Amino acid sequence: MIATKHSAGVRLNVVPFVSVDNMMKLVLAIGIERFLVELAGFIEADFRRWEHFDKTPRVASHSRNGVIELMPTSDGALYGFKYVNGHPSNTRDGRQTVTAFGVLADVATGYPLLLTEMTILTALRTAATSALAARYLAPKGAHTMALIGNGAQAEFQAVAFKALLGVDHVRLYDIDGAASEKCARNLAGFGLDIEICPSSQQAVSGASIITTVTADKQYATILTDNMVGPGVHINAVGGDCPGKTELHADVLRRSDIFVEYPPQTRIEGEIQQLPADHPVTELWQVIAGTLPGRRDDRQITLFDSVGFAVEDFSALRYVRERLAGTSFFDELDLLADPDEPRDLFGMLLRAKAAA
Amino acid sequence: MIATKHSAGVRLNVVPFVSVDNMMKLVLAIGIERFLVELAGFIEADFRRWEHFDKTPRVASHSRNGVIELMPTSDGALYGFKYVNGHPSNTRDGRQTVTAFGVLADVATGYPLLLTEMTILTALRTAATSALAARYLAPKGAHTMALIGNGAQAEFQAVAFKALLGVDHVRLYDIDGAASEKCARNLAGFGLDIEICPSSQQAVSGASIITTVTADKQYATILTDNMVGPGVHINAVGGDCPGKTELHADVLRRSDIFVEYPPQTRIEGEIQQLPADHPVTELWQVIAGTLPGRRDDRQITLFDSVGFAVEDFSALRYVRERLAGTSFFDELDLLADPDEPRDLFGMLLRAKAAA
Repeated sequence: MIATKHSAGVRLNVVPFVSVDNMMKLVLAIGIERFLVELAGFIEADFRRWEHFDKTPRVASHSRNGVIELMPTSDGALYGFKYVNGHPSNTRDGRQTVTAFGVLADVATGYPLLLTEMTILTALRTAATSALAARYLAPKGAHTMALIGNGAQAEFQAVAFKALLGVDHVRLYDIDGAASEKCARNLAGFGLDIEICPSSQQAVSGASIITTVTADKQYATILTDNMVGPGVHINAVGGDCPGKTELHADVLRRSDIFVEYPPQTRIEGEIQQLPADHPVTELWQVIAGTLPGRRDDRQITLFDSVGFAVEDFSALRYVRERLAGTSFFDELDLLADPDEPRDLFGMLLRAKAAA
Repeated sequence: MIATKHSAGVRLNVVPFVSVDNMMKLVLAIGIERFLVELAGFIEADFRRWEHFDKTPRVASHSRNGVIELMPTSDGALYGFKYVNGHPSNTRDGRQTVTAFGVLADVATGYPLLLTEMTILTALRTAATSALAARYLAPKGAHTMALIGNGAQAEFQAVAFKALLGVDHVRLYDIDGAASEKCARNLAGFGLDIEICPSSQQAVSGASIITTVTADKQYATILTDNMVGPGVHINAVGGDCPGKTELHADVLRRSDIFVEYPPQTRIEGEIQQLPADHPVTELWQVIAGTLPGRRDDRQITLFDSVGFAVEDFSALRYVRERLAGTSFFDELDLLADPDEPRDLFGMLLRAKAAA
């Protein structure tokens, strides 16, 4: 039951809600590739005005099995936050490692404008951010990518690199062959040349982009130093919380490292293995044109991606804009809206009288 | 559309959602007074085990008009957070000064267990906390309360003090007489002796409890030193963000001050007017019995209440427990739940095939 009262037709109690089902419908109506390209455009635009954002490392609550995080940010006009968990053990009982939802709100009133699932949206924005970074960092004309870790995020990465960079050869590796097979099956219709490789060593062979996106919550060594040749771009997605890394420190020392937000990446990214003053470049400065991205053919570039609140903000902003005029949302009676703002108690009493 | 798949009947995608309408139904089904008493019991139990909680000052995003805050906490088994705004100028265009919603989640999996409106629930938990504190701090047998500021929170305070302490005389004052009249009207059926007073000075006359709950986002002086006699308990609710206080600093200096969580209260409470080392007592220690509350008849006690995440956690926990077996919730398709956890992309593809 949703009560209306405002003659102008604005129902202040109602917040649009995008369910998982509606998010899938929205993505499919737009098209997965086009969604990724447009979303990357929103992220790019927000990275260009990076200094306008109120930024803070995410607020994490760690436990034995995983972590629950809140990721807020604001550009002064809109405020967004995401709730996201990371629980690698979840897959054992059929749950997702990462689930998420988020809210976009109006800074002027504090009223939420949108509540949406963000499990699917996070997968899309992570892939869009990776591909966006690679547009500035990967060697020109790169068309082969090694994709190590073929879990829930893998296909999104492959499709994003196809859509944004034209990468059309993907070399898969996962310690679980069934994950690679699932990944290859899902990617069948996307115009990609897919090869499942028997080792990560073989997967990286001939690849000018290496994407690592494994899920274990532990220090792991997915890439050793000998596996990384000159001129490669590494898109390191899986190392994203304290104690969870994927690359050998020697790989980091040979690379020029690009990060989203240093105070967060120093805690959560691959560079947690390095001294706190190890030089890194902020990706937004490359996108804004104030610092160079890739400088030559032999340079190893590394995007140490952990996911930052601004990317979620861009995704919320994009979904809100694309939702307008569609039916892909429900209306949630989320905000108490008494006839007279100070009469919250009276609203409760009148609900009693009405019942 | 909500797809089910788990033979055990557990639908991992679904999160119970309590709308404003359902929250009112739940509160009314339980009864407002009983709800406040039971909720205070949950808050009391959580304050007794205060040291078990992962605590952090709320994460605030301040803007010209107000503030948006995230308030997370966890006891190691459950995780809760509240989104809440504070925008005093909102009432000008018919919006609430404070709106809120919150989530309770399972720490073991990171999966949300409950999403609920918290505008009404925050009003209830704030009043329950005030009355709970007063049970430990107010003079014995107190039955008259001055209630200064007769906005959205006022009636909740009056009913909570009636239900938990037996306070049956309430002396109202607000700079806007219409607010006092609204308050008196709403409280008509609650067995209270209500008097609308022409000044705050007259409201406090004869009152052994003084509750201040005004809303301006500025330093104000609702209580001056001469208005506060010996033996009084002050329940200061309205001073709850930087730059917003209600009491003259001289009142604070004569009082024994009790707070929820000092790192937050030093920033947001009345004591932001005092040096950072001014002695305060943590309310939880009084409730746990490790420190005394009121010691004598002439002592002025002050509960410098700003609202802390643990109280919201208790409220979420209480609502979840009381919701079981009722129909006062909807089921939100909030979490992506593919048949195979790593096959998020495949779920999207199958949605396409199904459409």
